[in-house]
Amino acid sequence: MITGKQSISFENPPYIVNYASIVGQKEGEGPLGNCFDVIEEDPMVGSPNWEQAESALQKKAAETALQKAGLKPKDMRYLFSGDLLGQIIASSFGMLDLQIPMFGLYGACSTAGESLSLSAMTVAAGYADYCLAVTSSHFASAEKQFRYPLEYASQRPLSTTWTVTGSGAFIVGKQGKVKITGVTTGKMMDYGVKDSMNMGAAMAPAAADTICAHFKDFGRGPEDYDLIVTGDLGVVGRELLLDLLKQKGFDLTEKHFDCGIAIFDDITQDTHSGGSGCGCSAVTLAGYLLPKLESGELKRIFFMPTGALLSTVSFNEGQSIPGICHGVILEH
Amino acid sequence: MITGKQSISFENPPYIVNYASIVGQKEGEGPLGNCFDVIEEDPMVGSPNWEQAESALQKKAAETALQKAGLKPKDMRYLFSGDLLGQIIASSFGMLDLQIPMFGLYGACSTAGESLSLSAMTVAAGYADYCLAVTSSHFASAEKQFRYPLEYASQRPLSTTWTVTGSGAFIVGKQGKVKITGVTTGKMMDYGVKDSMNMGAAMAPAAADTICAHFKDFGRGPEDYDLIVTGDLGVVGRELLLDLLKQKGFDLTEKHFDCGIAIFDDITQDTHSGGSGCGCSAVTLAGYLLPKLESGELKRIFFMPTGALLSTVSFNEGQSIPGICHGVILEH
Repeated sequence: MITGKQSISFENPPYIVNYASIVGQKEGEGPLGNCFDVIEEDPMVGSPNWEQAESALQKKAAETALQKAGLKPKDMRYLFSGDLLGQIIASSFGMLDLQIPMFGLYGACSTAGESLSLSAMTVAAGYADYCLAVTSSHFASAEKQFRYPLEYASQRPLSTTWTVTGSGAFIVGKQGKVKITGVTTGKMMDYGVKDSMNMGAAMAPAAADTICAHFKDFGRGPEDYDLIVTGDLGVVGRELLLDLLKQKGFDLTEKHFDCGIAIFDDITQDTHSGGSGCGCSAVTLAGYLLPKLESGELKRIFFMPTGALLSTVSFNEGQSIPGICHGVILEH
Repeated sequence: MITGKQSISFENPPYIVNYASIVGQKEGEGPLGNCFDVIEEDPMVGSPNWEQAESALQKKAAETALQKAGLKPKDMRYLFSGDLLGQIIASSFGMLDLQIPMFGLYGACSTAGESLSLSAMTVAAGYADYCLAVTSSHFASAEKQFRYPLEYASQRPLSTTWTVTGSGAFIVGKQGKVKITGVTTGKMMDYGVKDSMNMGAAMAPAAADTICAHFKDFGRGPEDYDLIVTGDLGVVGRELLLDLLKQKGFDLTEKHFDCGIAIFDDITQDTHSGGSGCGCSAVTLAGYLLPKLESGELKRIFFMPTGALLSTVSFNEGQSIPGICHGVILEH
């Protein structure tokens, strides 16, 4: 069951029972626009502020996933959820009404991988029939948290990514649509990047480290996967990841898929390096990738979202931006 | 193994292998001053700012626990850590050098319970020989995060608590000093409290809910425990907890122990309702309670730190302060 240094291979693999994706208008107008369960036209989602708007996205995603599965909140033994905001308030206030025993997580944009890993470990260990994994991000709450007031209309360098407005929810259980056959849990990697407008560069080393650990632990290579899926490295981070892996002897050019690159069309949507945020990988997995795994169009992918571990305080104090990456094997 | 609605009873209980507590000067001068492994006289812990000081406390706590156990960071298969700061930067930067696969957590002041629960579940499931659970808080980084600049010397109402400067680290493994025989995982409870200077009131309902769920799941009552240990309800929160439990038919007056009340002497230390922060319950457990469990002076306790799920943003936007409480059964 314990596999190599950082991985688990499940003897009785848990399944993704059902899943849902809720996105904002811009995501709905992007290349994956026809994949999502709900496109929210109102950026406030009927809420008085951006943070509560993000909470509302989480709640809708969870409720939609439960509805699709024909399950109730009380059927969920544990909730694993997190987001990008300080003290994960999007999750606390979004999930409050569901009244599920909750483990709050913070893994920055890797949280979809972290929550799926812990849900899978919990179900496979027999601790739960069902777990619910929920993550979110919102463009406006993230800009307010990490960058500048939107009213400044600050110019963004070409290495920046655009935080996805969206939430993905996943029910993990003993039977279902897509198998979770293993996980590889990441270590923090710090290459000394200090540019918060270049998150791809900060996170690429963590992605490279987790994927190398994964290949070693499982005795696999890129050829064993239909896709190797990162969360939000973007165009800049992708180049770095491919370079780092070439140095380790792996060519990922054909197999690599980045949710951040897929979700927006930079030419028409002006998003620069791509999409980002906890919601980016979560909604791309729920909206685009899981249906393909369910149908068999994809047989096996390695889903490995990365997170940039900074706060405005650490950034302003001159600290670097370590990255982390949590991987999950998903199979038809 | 699954017990009742919210609990797990471990068939092969994991153990706390070893543990360490690092505290600041004020905690060292308090009633438990002679219990801790290290008392740091320098509030900056040799660091350039409060956040890095807190990171340094975490690192020292982890290193001390590893040293006491005769183990190395590479022996730890997973790290579960968290703190109170936005984007848990005390944990990220404190634990970076240890290079252990990491699950970042946020449960506010309940994080010691959350990290011990997940560590115990992970070891008991056979996913790890050893897990490391680390949490921290620092008076100055918490005041900066949640309240006012220290230089303002703001008056504090009597219901406030004083954030403990300290970090506790726990190694969980298959053999060791103190058994973890079960966990009860909390739901978020919101009684509509909006006063961030009265965290005890915000968290008491969550403590009451978790303890009632625990008694029901295990068919136990206060008489089955030597102590029922909350983290940082303080004097105000304790009264509310005892009242809430009386309404449910439980008298906890004799069995209840609050780490926040124990760690400071309000008469001489002017801390008002008591101590608080992720570090409060962690260092009291590591410094004061675990040695008594190890010696057999205590046979069985229920350790159930509570967290207040607010941020400055949610507070300033007029949101209430939900609480959460994660319980762990510890036995000689």
